[in-house]
Amino acid sequence: MAIRIPPDYVELAGQLADLARPIARRRFRQPLAVVDKPDRSPATVADLEIEAAMRERLQARAPDHGVYGEEYGQRDADRDWVWALDPIDGTRSFIAGVPLFGVLIALCHQGEPVYGVVEQPIQRERWQGGHGHPTRRNGQPARTRPCRLADAYQFTTSPDQFKTPDDIAAFRRVAAQVSTVRFGADCYAAGLIASGHAHLMVEASLEPYDYMALAPVIEAAGGRATDWSGAPLSFHGDGRFLAAADAELHAQALALLRA
Amino acid sequence: MAIRIPPDYVELAGQLADLARPIARRRFRQPLAVVDKPDRSPATVADLEIEAAMRERLQARAPDHGVYGEEYGQRDADRDWVWALDPIDGTRSFIAGVPLFGVLIALCHQGEPVYGVVEQPIQRERWQGGHGHPTRRNGQPARTRPCRLADAYQFTTSPDQFKTPDDIAAFRRVAAQVSTVRFGADCYAAGLIASGHAHLMVEASLEPYDYMALAPVIEAAGGRATDWSGAPLSFHGDGRFLAAADAELHAQALALLRA
Repeated sequence: MAIRIPPDYVELAGQLADLARPIARRRFRQPLAVVDKPDRSPATVADLEIEAAMRERLQARAPDHGVYGEEYGQRDADRDWVWALDPIDGTRSFIAGVPLFGVLIALCHQGEPVYGVVEQPIQRERWQGGHGHPTRRNGQPARTRPCRLADAYQFTTSPDQFKTPDDIAAFRRVAAQVSTVRFGADCYAAGLIASGHAHLMVEASLEPYDYMALAPVIEAAGGRATDWSGAPLSFHGDGRFLAAADAELHAQALALLRA
Repeated sequence: MAIRIPPDYVELAGQLADLARPIARRRFRQPLAVVDKPDRSPATVADLEIEAAMRERLQARAPDHGVYGEEYGQRDADRDWVWALDPIDGTRSFIAGVPLFGVLIALCHQGEPVYGVVEQPIQRERWQGGHGHPTRRNGQPARTRPCRLADAYQFTTSPDQFKTPDDIAAFRRVAAQVSTVRFGADCYAAGLIASGHAHLMVEASLEPYDYMALAPVIEAAGGRATDWSGAPLSFHGDGRFLAAADAELHAQALALLRA
């Protein structure tokens, strides 16, 4: 039985995005100290400030919930309700002044992402949806627009994220069958799929806070999102992500990934 | 001696961008018929409408000037003054709902691009500059921000634009030395370089209307733009493009491309 999400939690998800937007807007295209993290990915003061603000609000409003954030790690991640937070997904875009980065907020119940927010502070665009909450973009209904694989627009952040010959080959099998592959959109591609402008998203080397918010947003808009084995997304995934505008397109891409 | 650009022509360049913006905004994310052109690149009614509007204005205001446009081809391209027009650079981004496409307007004198406009209708961002006109973004001065090659953010629209093993190897030699390679920004990367957020742009398989507007915008902001041999950009180029935040960074990248 699908979990019913308490309305307070949905409201809280929106509040977290409301907190993030002005911080990201204030820091965007300003001189920023960039810290190289142990995995060589960058972080900025904006990443840190946004996650701190969101965690503070969660501590105040939902102290019994766990948190799994990109910058400050896990707290009580074994609780029934856990928030996965990526304060700035696409930090490299943020640093380079590209207004396609996003703030990702996922509410997870017993390890399953049930509600998500994809917030783009510069465009002032927000997609949100999940179980029992059809996806909306800035308050208006958003729906995927399924199409034939041969007509699909596919998004992939960078070809460099595919690290093994098998992953590279799998990516290329899908890319060879679609209409167009576009690079560089990070999480914004999930919003484009939810709104029917793009159709397919193939990623690898992701962390849970990178993908947990995307799945509910895409699925509550009519799409489908899993890992590359077709299994539901979880905190214990292998970092591979596949999303499509509907179940049929998803099955076609999945078959190519697994061929 | 540098050519002096009549003020009327600079004003006309701005008028062309003013014409383009509302058309692009009205058509963006609307259902669009997409036409596959002979080279397999797509065109939409927005490309056609914008170029038609710009050509009509040029015919009225500068009937003795030539025009070289992406959609409607060349007219009087042997005149002293020629306008190179790309009504939507990044048509694939436009189709997929990504607000990074651009309208490109280049004023060329005896084959040399002397003034350029990079207009992003959705963000309402416009970079313009050229000989005797330091680059401005939305009316405010824009300057490149040079850096070490190892710290540079490089933009390249897609790795798939490098068609030969030599070009792929050349791209990789540069990419291996910079801080970060980002994909997918099309002409918007030129604006990011002019405003100091990015530092390097390496492209191939371009047409003159794709790059003629970028060079004056970047150079009048302090940067440098040439082909991969270091020669000035022209209508007879080989489609390879290199831009950098200053002459030194340009020379370093050029040496790697030619190694």
